[in-house]
Amino acid sequence: MQAIQKIGQAAQTAAFELGQLATATKNQVLLAMADALEAATPTILAANQQDMAAADANHVRQVMLDRLKLDQQRVKDMAAGLRQVAALADPIGELVQGWQTESGLQIAQQRVPLGVIAMIYEARPNVTVDAAALTFKAGNAVILRGGKEALRSNIALATVLQTVLTQFNLPATAIQLLTDTTHETAQALMQLNEYVDVLIPRGSGRFIQTVVQTATVPVIETGAGNCHVYVDADADLAMAQKIVVNAKTQRPSVCNAMEKLVVHQQIAAEFLPQLAAALAPFHVELRGDAQAQAILPQLIPATAADWGTEYNDYIMAIKVVPDITAAISHINRYNTKHSEAIITNNYAHSQQFTQQIDAAVVYVNASTRFTDGFEFGFGAEIGISTQKLHARGPMGLTALTSTKYVVRGTGQVRP
Amino acid sequence: MQAIQKIGQAAQTAAFELGQLATATKNQVLLAMADALEAATPTILAANQQDMAAADANHVRQVMLDRLKLDQQRVKDMAAGLRQVAALADPIGELVQGWQTESGLQIAQQRVPLGVIAMIYEARPNVTVDAAALTFKAGNAVILRGGKEALRSNIALATVLQTVLTQFNLPATAIQLLTDTTHETAQALMQLNEYVDVLIPRGSGRFIQTVVQTATVPVIETGAGNCHVYVDADADLAMAQKIVVNAKTQRPSVCNAMEKLVVHQQIAAEFLPQLAAALAPFHVELRGDAQAQAILPQLIPATAADWGTEYNDYIMAIKVVPDITAAISHINRYNTKHSEAIITNNYAHSQQFTQQIDAAVVYVNASTRFTDGFEFGFGAEIGISTQKLHARGPMGLTALTSTKYVVRGTGQVRP
Repeated sequence: MQAIQKIGQAAQTAAFELGQLATATKNQVLLAMADALEAATPTILAANQQDMAAADANHVRQVMLDRLKLDQQRVKDMAAGLRQVAALADPIGELVQGWQTESGLQIAQQRVPLGVIAMIYEARPNVTVDAAALTFKAGNAVILRGGKEALRSNIALATVLQTVLTQFNLPATAIQLLTDTTHETAQALMQLNEYVDVLIPRGSGRFIQTVVQTATVPVIETGAGNCHVYVDADADLAMAQKIVVNAKTQRPSVCNAMEKLVVHQQIAAEFLPQLAAALAPFHVELRGDAQAQAILPQLIPATAADWGTEYNDYIMAIKVVPDITAAISHINRYNTKHSEAIITNNYAHSQQFTQQIDAAVVYVNASTRFTDGFEFGFGAEIGISTQKLHARGPMGLTALTSTKYVVRGTGQVRP
Repeated sequence: MQAIQKIGQAAQTAAFELGQLATATKNQVLLAMADALEAATPTILAANQQDMAAADANHVRQVMLDRLKLDQQRVKDMAAGLRQVAALADPIGELVQGWQTESGLQIAQQRVPLGVIAMIYEARPNVTVDAAALTFKAGNAVILRGGKEALRSNIALATVLQTVLTQFNLPATAIQLLTDTTHETAQALMQLNEYVDVLIPRGSGRFIQTVVQTATVPVIETGAGNCHVYVDADADLAMAQKIVVNAKTQRPSVCNAMEKLVVHQQIAAEFLPQLAAALAPFHVELRGDAQAQAILPQLIPATAADWGTEYNDYIMAIKVVPDITAAISHINRYNTKHSEAIITNNYAHSQQFTQQIDAAVVYVNASTRFTDGFEFGFGAEIGISTQKLHARGPMGLTALTSTKYVVRGTGQVRP
């Protein structure tokens, strides 16, 4: 506990210095970090091989090993990511709005860093570099707590970044990695209100809920995505099929992948068999309600639990509805407020759906897979917010900032 | 606990309906509420007299009685507040930004209501009406939990507002008042994550910290203000005196009142005696560090605890500093990130102060008392945020909204 207090304090001190940095300096540091990462490739890969060997010995799942593994190309990709962040516009200093009051005060709302950002994430070493780059560019200090399986890799990466900070006479504590990966320390970080301005957790829905329950610092909820595609009676069925196949199978493990199909009863009998055939090569397990089962007898009956479950796998549940209003009710009841799509050529239905669905991103005639900072054109992404405060949807650099009002007067007092 | 779940669910259902309302309808409802409040003045005052009698019998402090008390004029003021909110521009539906991606997707970021807002506040009946008006105008359902001393007044007020909702065929559950004022129910409200999108606590700094520690729903911290005025060596001392007297004495009980004077050592010997004389008629208790005591022997020695304390009273502590950098360090260490002022005619110092002070509002040559939604020109205020997420500083209608991305495509899938 003593240690985490010190880490927080050091981060706050560093944040003050980072908040004053010129854009050119920040970009030079990021480019130097990219070069240093590439130069340190052998050290980084050696550390990662130790992590991989330990994870393998501990029978860690293949999907986690895939995320943990680094190679020459992945180090190059991380360096490229740093250069990309250097090329992004600096959000700090932007004059968001300004006006003059009746008493002659000039009010300017200026964009400033958040201060100290904490991130808790899974065993993905690339997140260490991505998160450090984005928080640094937005003038923040960061405290990183990655999955324990990636500890050696993360130490190697953070050491490289810290060395570059030192070379630029910047505090190495601007980017700190928690090497104590116990739950106690993670919990202490979640309650470090004196120093931490925001905590961004990444990981499974269950993990994020634990953070929400435990944290006393402000949290931005990210990630969980029980995403729906609703195929309306007036849909172009060929388009609908293409979009559903893409949203479900292009990368089923991610949060913007589709989990549920909602289909209008009028076209269900025509659409579902075509869709089942199109999904067959991908071995998607199909579940469904009674109406869907009547059309596709091979369906596994969907239970009540299915509608609220994010599978992150080659599984899809199908719900047949009598009309768009029923579709909207069902989606608003079970969704995680991430990404929802309607496929329709009916203008009024497209408007009703976008107006009434409560989600970060609502699509008409496009795949839910586009909910992503890069796809949105932000150039980078720190996560996808599924809450309504501060930032909603893909979060780029601006989501890592706050504002402050600067008020210039000539001696005004309040009457 | 069962009851609070039901209240939350009803609020969520009402919020869906409110989010779809036309601006004209919302304004008609607000105007009708204003008329209904005035018409119900006898009932409201009778309920308030019961509250006042009970509070008096329970030896409630005079300052709290002042806030609790309603009279003809205060009911008129609440009605005027409702009409003022009706006249404000509706933030909902604003197109915040929009663009087209390379793949031809049209992305529109639209302003939407937050959904369900919970407010926990002190025994001030006018907050019941103000909060209901603002949350309603921004399309949100609200759950109100006022101080228990104001319960009868709040029930009378909420009943009037709910009756108007019903007259307009709107759900009365759009504005709900918790009549169970136990701590257990307040705590359950703070953890009602399934239904509450944001909780805004108002009250003492200690109360707000308790909420931050207890709540699992997103919280916007408001209010606590340990505000400083720094009088620089290059200050116009007459202006400095006028601003300090105003910031300290115009209304010492509020959060934007000044609590601490930081003064450059070069002008301290000249300025402090003048200031002490100017403050004398207001009976401000002056405390100070050793350097200040050397100039004003009547000072009470300031202890370490003084620098971090919000007095909300006719008390002021004085710190003498060698330069502006020391002033900034002291303020950033002890402030509550609310409102801080520099009095100077030195341009470089004005820039350094506004750049380096970490607070919601930073003033040059003006009183901290201007940190207020009305003074800022927002036309209304739901509170003053002292956190960095979502909203910082005075919060008007926009702070009660979120955004959602609407993405329109022509069949795009992710490659």
